[in-house]
Amino acid sequence: MSDNEEKKEVKPIKGDDGSLYFELDDKKRVTVRKFKGKLYVDIREFYEKDGEMLPGKKGISLNLQNWEQFRSLIDSIDQCITDI
Amino acid sequence: MSDNEEKKEVKPIKGDDGSLYFELDDKKRVTVRKFKGKLYVDIREFYEKDGEMLPGKKGISLNLQNWEQFRSLIDSIDQCITDI
Repeated sequence: MSDNEEKKEVKPIKGDDGSLYFELDDKKRVTVRKFKGKLYVDIREFYEKDGEMLPGKKGISLNLQNWEQFRSLIDSIDQCITDI
Repeated sequence: MSDNEEKKEVKPIKGDDGSLYFELDDKKRVTVRKFKGKLYVDIREFYEKDGEMLPGKKGISLNLQNWEQFRSLIDSIDQCITDI
């Protein structure tokens, strides 16, 4: 496993509404959801109201094609971050 | 290269304002930028106005910590997409 540390899998958290999400920090979430039979990956800020976390305006929904394109760009984005 | 196709690097596009970005589709971009010495990865929808592409409201800025967390979650998100 030592060469493979970044590959370890994290289980998603199940939200009250049945959504499945991962936390980027205490406010930002990546939610995987199906809507009308299509898959979306939603990266969004949440805010707290009456002890509940609610989705805010800041965010974007990626469809599956967007997601696959995004994933294929990860290494290039990393390289860009290093170069900038 | 055959085992390594997803690793091929794409060069970012340089925007008119000097920003560096990658296209997810004709409207969605991932922009890498420095602001006050800090790095951000901005995933955002753009719209066209007078022949120019302008950033829209739908989007989110990830700081470098968010980005690193996000990257570490890619495989888990993929697994979640497969399972859902």
